[in-house]
Amino acid sequence: MTSDKAEKKVKLVAAGSVAYDDLATPKGVREKSLGGSAVYFSTVASFFAPVGMVGVAGNDFEESDRDFLRSRKINLDGLALDKNGPTFRWKGEYGANFGDATTHSTCLNVFENFDPVLTEEYKNADFLFLANIHPALQIQIIKSVKNPKIIGLDTMNFWIDSEPDALREAISMTDILFVNRQEALQLSGEKTFAKSVETLLKMGAPRIVIKLGELGAMTATADSRFFVPAFPSKNLTDPTGAGDSFGGGFMGNLARTGDISEANIRRSMLYGSVMGSLTVEGFSIDVYKTLSPEKIEQRFEEIKKMISI
Amino acid sequence: MTSDKAEKKVKLVAAGSVAYDDLATPKGVREKSLGGSAVYFSTVASFFAPVGMVGVAGNDFEESDRDFLRSRKINLDGLALDKNGPTFRWKGEYGANFGDATTHSTCLNVFENFDPVLTEEYKNADFLFLANIHPALQIQIIKSVKNPKIIGLDTMNFWIDSEPDALREAISMTDILFVNRQEALQLSGEKTFAKSVETLLKMGAPRIVIKLGELGAMTATADSRFFVPAFPSKNLTDPTGAGDSFGGGFMGNLARTGDISEANIRRSMLYGSVMGSLTVEGFSIDVYKTLSPEKIEQRFEEIKKMISI
Repeated sequence: MTSDKAEKKVKLVAAGSVAYDDLATPKGVREKSLGGSAVYFSTVASFFAPVGMVGVAGNDFEESDRDFLRSRKINLDGLALDKNGPTFRWKGEYGANFGDATTHSTCLNVFENFDPVLTEEYKNADFLFLANIHPALQIQIIKSVKNPKIIGLDTMNFWIDSEPDALREAISMTDILFVNRQEALQLSGEKTFAKSVETLLKMGAPRIVIKLGELGAMTATADSRFFVPAFPSKNLTDPTGAGDSFGGGFMGNLARTGDISEANIRRSMLYGSVMGSLTVEGFSIDVYKTLSPEKIEQRFEEIKKMISI
Repeated sequence: MTSDKAEKKVKLVAAGSVAYDDLATPKGVREKSLGGSAVYFSTVASFFAPVGMVGVAGNDFEESDRDFLRSRKINLDGLALDKNGPTFRWKGEYGANFGDATTHSTCLNVFENFDPVLTEEYKNADFLFLANIHPALQIQIIKSVKNPKIIGLDTMNFWIDSEPDALREAISMTDILFVNRQEALQLSGEKTFAKSVETLLKMGAPRIVIKLGELGAMTATADSRFFVPAFPSKNLTDPTGAGDSFGGGFMGNLARTGDISEANIRRSMLYGSVMGSLTVEGFSIDVYKTLSPEKIEQRFEEIKKMISI
């Protein structure tokens, strides 16, 4: 297993789904496309800091996909291989506006019995991101880490509906809650964006990040607000993973710098926006097969100009 | 009529509707509430620069409303009084999310025969704003002004549908096109926000401003983009006039300074956001009956903090 070891000590751990997606977008179709929240997040974060990935793949997991993750120096000690079935599979379709996907099928497969295991190295990581998985598993992971500087948590409409109590408990144990605009309204029970921000800030996470899709993202604490626009990608191809990529850029920059000041949180919002905009320019994680770090910095400067006065 | 004269030379002219609104919002109901695009725009702009208002009121126009406009030093030489009928009347209702209003009735009344007349002083103004009126009237006014620095034009779904050719001609004669997100998609025929921006920029106005409601606003030219967030008003009361108030703050700051540089356009975006957020904190133009200039500057600084890195 030495070949699965990253070269440097893991600073950031991400737990989430590993998936194969069958996609149709206005730009084409793609079958068995590598996806899942842990994959998107870790791939993106690997451009910033040593990242360890917690997830489960099935008996159909391609060696070439594992090779890609290795090539990004992602620590795969937390990636379980379950030979009892295939990898989590999602089939979906995006309409002409690239908006919310229509789900055709969701097969949990080995993800149904996912039991996340963290190595000692992972437990000592300073930054933890809990992508969209069952809140009970999120809590289990939070309890197993030792003394993280920042715990980020993402979730989705399904858990907001089906596991409200566990989700509330998980949120209360985290530092940053990541949701999109719809989830913000649903989770808060409010009708307006402004009210949802107020209500979410009372749920126990001292900071919230609301992803606004093609309009960007905002973050709020009790006494600060910050907005970042989305970069206007001219080659929108596949929106899958944009939100997890935002998280990967955001948490990746925190882990790279170790700096959790308000100023660096704001820079991290820009990196989140940068990475979200890059991911959607190709299918799956294709963009990251050839991406140069210079392009990230270049786009960071472009977005910075969009809010400079 | 000398009492209707503003004390200073008119720098900014606004043409649009003068209306009475019968409103229901989650915060209450209000009948015969002073409204209309020219009223909101001029009231807001009066906090920045001497403004002249072009519009028509009917035989039910209240002296107290005229007194309010006078008290704001708005030049009313362009406000016609048509005794043949009542003022334009709109009845509408906002749901719990304060989103798009449901229109119960629209009675054009004297607005149907609106024939805008500009005084010599108006024709020499440096800044012109054409609020949402028939594109043919917008063109007529544009042709009557002499040498304006900036012409801004707003429109709405009704004209996009019913008068596409006249609207395109009007847009091609202006410097800044103001629309909201829905109108941007409709006018451009595009499905995504990013594409709509590209397409609108080819319609002849070198700059576009897209108002994004509770998320703020963006402006674009061929080679620049800028986003401003909305201020999170805690006392959302009546969203009517928010867009025209944005325009009033934006154009008002341009007229106050005479500076049309990119840097000042960006500051004007912030003033637009400030004034939009103030308007919605009360019914009608109520907020402006007691507003202090200091509050405008204070909120400007608050919004500036929301995009500072």
